[in-house]
Amino acid sequence: MARRSTREHIVDVAIALFNERGTAAVSTNHIAEAAGISPGNLYYHFRNKEEIILQAYERALCAYDQAWANAGTAPPSPHTILELLEETFGAQWRYRFLQREMSWLVQTNEALRVRYRDVMHKRLAYYQGLIRAWIAAGICQPLPDAQLDDLVLASWVVGEQWLTYLEAMGEATDEQAIRRGGRLILEVFRPHLIDLEERSSVAAKGPAS
Amino acid sequence: MARRSTREHIVDVAIALFNERGTAAVSTNHIAEAAGISPGNLYYHFRNKEEIILQAYERALCAYDQAWANAGTAPPSPHTILELLEETFGAQWRYRFLQREMSWLVQTNEALRVRYRDVMHKRLAYYQGLIRAWIAAGICQPLPDAQLDDLVLASWVVGEQWLTYLEAMGEATDEQAIRRGGRLILEVFRPHLIDLEERSSVAAKGPAS
Repeated sequence: MARRSTREHIVDVAIALFNERGTAAVSTNHIAEAAGISPGNLYYHFRNKEEIILQAYERALCAYDQAWANAGTAPPSPHTILELLEETFGAQWRYRFLQREMSWLVQTNEALRVRYRDVMHKRLAYYQGLIRAWIAAGICQPLPDAQLDDLVLASWVVGEQWLTYLEAMGEATDEQAIRRGGRLILEVFRPHLIDLEERSSVAAKGPAS
Repeated sequence: MARRSTREHIVDVAIALFNERGTAAVSTNHIAEAAGISPGNLYYHFRNKEEIILQAYERALCAYDQAWANAGTAPPSPHTILELLEETFGAQWRYRFLQREMSWLVQTNEALRVRYRDVMHKRLAYYQGLIRAWIAAGICQPLPDAQLDDLVLASWVVGEQWLTYLEAMGEATDEQAIRRGGRLILEVFRPHLIDLEERSSVAAKGPAS
């Protein structure tokens, strides 16, 4: 096995164990054993469990970015958002230990904490920009800044916690359940969205193109 | 120390330790030591850590119920809800290990899982009933059942996760921050609420009392 693929293999195995048992119950020795390598070999690639968890988080971020990269360069429409959310929730499910444990992991894993907060701030700013783009495009009614920020934050918290909620409640995490999470977020914005028919009548009447 | 107060003292000490270190890092021996009692005495009151966690959850439920009992028997107004949410968030903060770890605890603690899911179903039904009462009272615009359920669920997920979010982001958990959580929930419902001025004009025009 080539060196890089051993590193990737360790992360694969660790994610499966973390999802199954929680990070607290999984040691680097457990991971090495499940990966079929010696503890010494594991330590060649990762100094400790915290580094493996951080690497798993980087992978989850890649999966989310990939989903959103498919949206292209134009601001995605509300309808496209629903599809993107579904893809994002699917990726969250593959890294569900992060969803379950993040609030605790950031207390104990400094590198993860710094990375997590930086990423969250950037993503919140991205979504705020997205809604402003919708307003500019006439898809969304104008909103005062404070209200826009509150709506983005509320839908963000829902998005971050939807799978955790389903799991805690013992509900299925199948496609239908995941889709409902997207619908909840859309429901938060729906009263502010100008629907397609309404938009075309505004375009017919108003000066906007 | 009387028997009942020893039991309560154990739960007090355990909550402080769970909040500080997480449940995984705290053993019944740690709790006994911090409580200044022997492990044998602790086992007289609780068979294991899971029972102590369940007892802490029951206390948290009492704190939430107390906050909402102050609302009285009439359906609370949107404005009152903001105050109640603030009190509830304050109680959540005192039992913050439950907020942080619940998704994981319900996987491993069967008695807690059963109790948690039962309580959640009842509370969701309570909030759905509350919004229906607002609609009947002319405080909220009529909503189709599916949309009403989605809005309640979205705001529920926000309410359950607001403190966890603040903490994960390293933000203050002071009064102002807690109030913002209430505002997020109100923001989800605001477009559907008929404000006071509007309501009085409706009352002046319409047949409703």
